[in-house]
Amino acid sequence: MKTKHVIDLEDLSKSELMEIITLANQIMANPAEYADACKGKILATLFYEPSTRTQMSFKTAMLRLGGSVIGFDNPQNSSVSKGESLKDTITVVGGYTDIIAIRHPLEGAAKAASMYSAAPVINAGDGGHLHPTQTLTDVVTLYNEKGTLDNMCIGLCGDLKNGRTVHSLIKTMSHFKGNKFVLISTPELTVPQYIKDILNASSCHYTEVSGLKEAMPMLDMLYMTRIQRERFSSEAEYEKQKGVFVLDREKLLDAKRDLKILHPLPRVDEIAEDVDYDPRAKYFVQTVYGMYARMALIMTMLKDGDRTPMPRKFDTHNVKCKNPRCITTIEQYLPKRFRAVGGDMLLCRYCEERTLI
Amino acid sequence: MKTKHVIDLEDLSKSELMEIITLANQIMANPAEYADACKGKILATLFYEPSTRTQMSFKTAMLRLGGSVIGFDNPQNSSVSKGESLKDTITVVGGYTDIIAIRHPLEGAAKAASMYSAAPVINAGDGGHLHPTQTLTDVVTLYNEKGTLDNMCIGLCGDLKNGRTVHSLIKTMSHFKGNKFVLISTPELTVPQYIKDILNASSCHYTEVSGLKEAMPMLDMLYMTRIQRERFSSEAEYEKQKGVFVLDREKLLDAKRDLKILHPLPRVDEIAEDVDYDPRAKYFVQTVYGMYARMALIMTMLKDGDRTPMPRKFDTHNVKCKNPRCITTIEQYLPKRFRAVGGDMLLCRYCEERTLI
Amino acid sequence: MKTKHVIDLEDLSKSELMEIITLANQIMANPAEYADACKGKILATLFYEPSTRTQMSFKTAMLRLGGSVIGFDNPQNSSVSKGESLKDTITVVGGYTDIIAIRHPLEGAAKAASMYSAAPVINAGDGGHLHPTQTLTDVVTLYNEKGTLDNMCIGLCGDLKNGRTVHSLIKTMSHFKGNKFVLISTPELTVPQYIKDILNASSCHYTEVSGLKEAMPMLDMLYMTRIQRERFSSEAEYEKQKGVFVLDREKLLDAKRDLKILHPLPRVDEIAEDVDYDPRAKYFVQTVYGMYARMALIMTMLKDGDRTPMPRKFDTHNVKCKNPRCITTIEQYLPKRFRAVGGDMLLCRYCEERTLI
Repeated sequence: MKTKHVIDLEDLSKSELMEIITLANQIMANPAEYADACKGKILATLFYEPSTRTQMSFKTAMLRLGGSVIGFDNPQNSSVSKGESLKDTITVVGGYTDIIAIRHPLEGAAKAASMYSAAPVINAGDGGHLHPTQTLTDVVTLYNEKGTLDNMCIGLCGDLKNGRTVHSLIKTMSHFKGNKFVLISTPELTVPQYIKDILNASSCHYTEVSGLKEAMPMLDMLYMTRIQRERFSSEAEYEKQKGVFVLDREKLLDAKRDLKILHPLPRVDEIAEDVDYDPRAKYFVQTVYGMYARMALIMTMLKDGDRTPMPRKFDTHNVKCKNPRCITTIEQYLPKRFRAVGGDMLLCRYCEERTLI
Repeated sequence: MKTKHVIDLEDLSKSELMEIITLANQIMANPAEYADACKGKILATLFYEPSTRTQMSFKTAMLRLGGSVIGFDNPQNSSVSKGESLKDTITVVGGYTDIIAIRHPLEGAAKAASMYSAAPVINAGDGGHLHPTQTLTDVVTLYNEKGTLDNMCIGLCGDLKNGRTVHSLIKTMSHFKGNKFVLISTPELTVPQYIKDILNASSCHYTEVSGLKEAMPMLDMLYMTRIQRERFSSEAEYEKQKGVFVLDREKLLDAKRDLKILHPLPRVDEIAEDVDYDPRAKYFVQTVYGMYARMALIMTMLKDGDRTPMPRKFDTHNVKCKNPRCITTIEQYLPKRFRAVGGDMLLCRYCEERTLI
Repeated sequence: MKTKHVIDLEDLSKSELMEIITLANQIMANPAEYADACKGKILATLFYEPSTRTQMSFKTAMLRLGGSVIGFDNPQNSSVSKGESLKDTITVVGGYTDIIAIRHPLEGAAKAASMYSAAPVINAGDGGHLHPTQTLTDVVTLYNEKGTLDNMCIGLCGDLKNGRTVHSLIKTMSHFKGNKFVLISTPELTVPQYIKDILNASSCHYTEVSGLKEAMPMLDMLYMTRIQRERFSSEAEYEKQKGVFVLDREKLLDAKRDLKILHPLPRVDEIAEDVDYDPRAKYFVQTVYGMYARMALIMTMLKDGDRTPMPRKFDTHNVKCKNPRCITTIEQYLPKRFRAVGGDMLLCRYCEERTLI
């Protein structure tokens, strides 16, 4: 791979992505052949916020490759609570282990970790920013269930403004040809402008609609997410709208017979429980695809074997990132790294927020 | 085995139970031969309430078979805290792993889990209801220490009303021939009527006595449990009675020389510390038998390889279980499943409480 | 080894210590050869207080030897919270596993554990008392970075009064020939008298100085630790002194070119972050040496295979240890064990505090 660390799925070229999908399918077809592929290797799962589901998926992936796992799931139990910096923790754990999956509540934390780690780093979610292995899970699911990643009509429903998995899936699917998008949400919760810019730049057709029912008949794939009650503009609006974004058997009556329903899970009540028994519901088998996707990613990243032995120094800027959820607000030794993005704008290399100089 | 899941030890026929005991002994005699018996297999230990002892026993069992383990021990760190249903968690984990051990504070939770799991489920304790691997531990211990499961005089001491391990041990030992029971407790804390019904139905002889001392000379086996202070009818009663149900060296003076003392552990103060040095004390080696018992159970359950791929629908009743500690009170999507038990009575298939229609 | 358990590094003879250092180096040179050295063996990590760093080091060490690991990192999740004694927990876990690493907030806890464990016990830190695998880490680092353990000028900086790793390192290095010590601290926080007694008894030369700067030019090795703010005699004193014990690039200007800087980690602010990029900074690679040191120790302890099957009784004294942080204050069934140390003094065999009869 051109990249040692996977912080964003965009770090992979399209052909690298296809190689990982292909490898995931090979493992799925013949798991016994890969049962010792990572024998003797150790994965660290550093979860600075709990996420049992994601942590279990990573652990299972590593164990099914014959590797082993160390880590923590609770920042209160970690050296962090003794005031240790992310840099020191990562430097030490990068010396103990062969690969690291990090989850952190702050945006840009995985990027910061990757700057000091001898072992390759996988971003397992950094706040509301990125979650590349979820998107990898989604595309492995789609590729297997549809046989292609091209020419699909893709519905995305729920809170499209704040959903990192939604943004990432749109970005990735926009690289494949002939995909159309149907964006299903309240007007307040539609995708941010930068996502529309990406869609326009890739000449992807998209429509914005205000309810699941009208979108249903067109869709080849429906990606469900949740709108939290507090995201509606008022309690009255919530009461009026809530049913419009809930998937139930009645709304499925107008759907295509080969529709595929995905969801990043955990689901709360945005999909009625009896939809689980519809053969188009793929959100549970999606988690199994996710395990194989992570196996393929881990194998590919370990193959390279690059172990830069010690941290390097980076250029630092005299501007501070203004995003209060950026990792640089807490870990203040981090060099202030930006990329000029035209005009007087700088893009923070950790959290990707734009700052006016 | 006739059953895919082990929720109650009664799910096993007597011959299946004997096969597991035999296998446990074979593993104990030659552990090296079984060191790779579950290589490549993964056990999930889903502990919705902490129980380090039981979780360690399951983990050690799986590791000594060459398998590996994922799981959690703290509901606060799990997706549960994000409002995920037991059904969804189990569906996903059943897709990741090969076998699941679940512990839950609510009665019937393991049964509910088994309805949605592709992987076989072991009940590692569901509230005050059942704990089959403890009973399996007890019978493996007895079989090894006595050479038989027949014709014994079995004392059970402590809180016999609320002790799930006591009820389960009586049920299991009543299937073997010639066993007599001595029930040692306060009048308020003797076994429930349904246990007496079982003893009567199997023509097992039993006596109820009010102190350890008078029972001691008859016993071949003594199963100690604890009476919690708050279970006594009054503080005065507690002060008067407390010593009567504590095992110490003085009470052992009248005991048989081949008595075997068992305890499900953890022990608090119901056995004096210096009894530990008496050769009749078997409660520590009992935990080692428990490890081999769990190894035998896991191996047997994995041999079958049944992996029903997706949840099925069940008939649901229009009556609700009235037990406030039943899993159906919290997980409300669960179908209301009952079994008619004569008259107007229904028995809840989860927690086994009886409800009058 | 002459000892089954390693509670204090002083339990090892000098030649045993050198054998472990040599083995650590052999593993480091050829890790693949040791990848299955502990296959089928289980390490328990019983952490009664959290210490992610130390626990990860032990886990990684065992996994890299092909063994596996069970344990807990949170006393709240353990049977301890149900009132179980240390003795019972250790008796059971010693029956499940092959070797135990215990960390406990009370002094003498590891010694107490070793009295009841069938499996060999490693002290992974008992309160402010001992932490032998940290010292083993330190000497493996020194031996590799300097090529010798003799004839060095060793600086120790920070809180030398309360630092258990400092005391232990001085004791160990005093056994090697020609070592001189420079003790760098405030007058209130210099080493305890018993350490000075050891230095005098071994005819080791030592000086006490009041700042890093003046000590720097002499040093072959500098062991940094932290002085907590509240250890200074007053806030004014803290403000005046704080910089004197912080290592930064400016203070390094006068240092030897082959100085080696060590630190037990986690570091807070006693070493400036940009010292990390100086080639003399060895505190991160020190953790990697620590992993190999623990691998060598575990292998050596498992080789012996002594598994005393059941607890034995010990003589008990009628004096109680007066140290409020001694394990005997909480675990009251423990026999009161002392060693006469002259006059009317008794030394507690758990926490090593002296008590006047």
